[in-house]
Amino acid sequence: MARLISHSIVLIGLVLIACEVPAGGPEVEAPGTVALVIHGGAGGMQRSTLSPERQAEYRHALETTLRAGYELLRAGSSSLDVVEATIRRMEDDPLFNAGRGAVFTAEGKNELDASIMDGASTLGGAVAGVTTVRHPISAARAVMERTEHVLLAGAGAEAFAEAEGLEIVDPKYFWTEARWESLQRAQERERAAQPGGAAAAFGTVGAVALDLDGRVAAGTSTGGMTNKRHGRIGDSPIIGAGTYASAGCGVSGTGHGEYFIRFAVAFDICSRHARGATIQEAADQVVHGVLAEAGGAGGIIALDGGGVPALVFNTEAMYRGHVLADGEPRVAIFNDE
Amino acid sequence: MARLISHSIVLIGLVLIACEVPAGGPEVEAPGTVALVIHGGAGGMQRSTLSPERQAEYRHALETTLRAGYELLRAGSSSLDVVEATIRRMEDDPLFNAGRGAVFTAEGKNELDASIMDGASTLGGAVAGVTTVRHPISAARAVMERTEHVLLAGAGAEAFAEAEGLEIVDPKYFWTEARWESLQRAQERERAAQPGGAAAAFGTVGAVALDLDGRVAAGTSTGGMTNKRHGRIGDSPIIGAGTYASAGCGVSGTGHGEYFIRFAVAFDICSRHARGATIQEAADQVVHGVLAEAGGAGGIIALDGGGVPALVFNTEAMYRGHVLADGEPRVAIFNDE
Repeated sequence: MARLISHSIVLIGLVLIACEVPAGGPEVEAPGTVALVIHGGAGGMQRSTLSPERQAEYRHALETTLRAGYELLRAGSSSLDVVEATIRRMEDDPLFNAGRGAVFTAEGKNELDASIMDGASTLGGAVAGVTTVRHPISAARAVMERTEHVLLAGAGAEAFAEAEGLEIVDPKYFWTEARWESLQRAQERERAAQPGGAAAAFGTVGAVALDLDGRVAAGTSTGGMTNKRHGRIGDSPIIGAGTYASAGCGVSGTGHGEYFIRFAVAFDICSRHARGATIQEAADQVVHGVLAEAGGAGGIIALDGGGVPALVFNTEAMYRGHVLADGEPRVAIFNDE
Repeated sequence: MARLISHSIVLIGLVLIACEVPAGGPEVEAPGTVALVIHGGAGGMQRSTLSPERQAEYRHALETTLRAGYELLRAGSSSLDVVEATIRRMEDDPLFNAGRGAVFTAEGKNELDASIMDGASTLGGAVAGVTTVRHPISAARAVMERTEHVLLAGAGAEAFAEAEGLEIVDPKYFWTEARWESLQRAQERERAAQPGGAAAAFGTVGAVALDLDGRVAAGTSTGGMTNKRHGRIGDSPIIGAGTYASAGCGVSGTGHGEYFIRFAVAFDICSRHARGATIQEAADQVVHGVLAEAGGAGGIIALDGGGVPALVFNTEAMYRGHVLADGEPRVAIFNDE
């Protein structure tokens, strides 16, 4: 009888605890669900301007990246490891504006930014304006794990990365013909005082993962904006703007970075979700509400603590994809798919 | 009769609009109220360690700064102008760790950061890691008003400031005996593997102002952390972390910057206020709740759209003061006053 009463009290206690969890708040899911969502930048790409061959290249790159990340997650890798590995792969792929394939600044240099955040510990790390680090996302992770700091910039960040044994490359490593031609075109337009055009792409890569232990992590890496002013820092290395992760939420953004900073986009989405919005509602409110009303173009990818994804953008297109528990990658580019 | 019906519809419409404004949300106040709140850094200062003469110097500096700002506000200056003027004055004062009086990095340099945000337009600007700009807060404002960017760092930011005609000084201008000795002591402790001690001060200056037209602006400027790693960027130049302003809220923070970034402190306080918390409640929730629970030391100053101030810190002390409509400055240092 005593045991029965004791059990009843425990049961009532559990029911009360369950009732206190707000709808849509941080989920405590049964372990075993994994999820990975990635983006390769948002912008004005259209079917008429992106050749079928090029579209196929992007879709193939997104799909193979998702498959590789899924295998790691199923094998028990942490979400932090998978976010880093996924972004390293995209940094190595010249299709994307991050790592090799980064766009050029107005001075003809490649200045790279990246950030990563571990939702379980709410620790974050980032680097800005590095020119010699092959994988900026790994430098961001080293800042998080091996310093007391969150953000290191410029020569200080490069010296740190080298001291930590990360792979250092000649700045020429980042040079690609396609990005160099983009800079020439941008500077010709500038000389002719022409606007950048609606097809401007916000090149960035990002990943958000949920691992078997229910931990969410998020990361973002970019080569910045073509023809940008020397020293400009966008949202990608700013925890809260381009990247955020908490116990029940992860976000990576891509777009007109200044707007993402001014409206703390990644933090705001996780904050709205923690207050009760679904991850889709939170992302819609910020990307189609706050950002769009202010004139800020871009998009985000996100996961909640139960592995529910949101892929939301207010531009014509966003290179994107996700893989959930069933292991089947789903990739897309345009806003009608 | 038609006119009467039309008027009634307008009236009902206005009542409905009024009812939709959540309690504590952005206030629309009658013009004419002005307010200014400032800080000069938070930390472990105690009566036993800060001499009465030194306390008097700080109190005098805070009080004269508030009086000067109040006069500008009463004369019709914009909150943006007053925030800039107030912070320039504190940047020139070697008492404070900003501008002249900035602390030294591990390499014996002064690297300065600042940011400013205009709540009416939600535009923001910032500079990080500058070594030659006398008034970093003015460089931050120039980034906001004269570029498409929010944040410029390092040599790019310095070149921009010079091109814009801001006052450029030899890096030696920022050298002060007191800060140099602080670096020597910090490095001696480091060599002896001693902890920094509870008396560590987070030197930063900040201001939030409300002008006659009801506009809120906020700004922050700092010399960073003594003995910091080269290239480290803290929260002061990060819109959303160290500084935020919206139509009905302004915040400037001071403290362990990495925590302010990870929890988007300034944005979060304005966001909580916009959702219904008073400015005091919002500041308490974030500084004594979120920050303190994570182990983040520091404080904030804030104003709401009606000129109600909040000055909240979880350290022993914060150099701080405010002046409201009556024009009487109130200054304080320790947590029991």
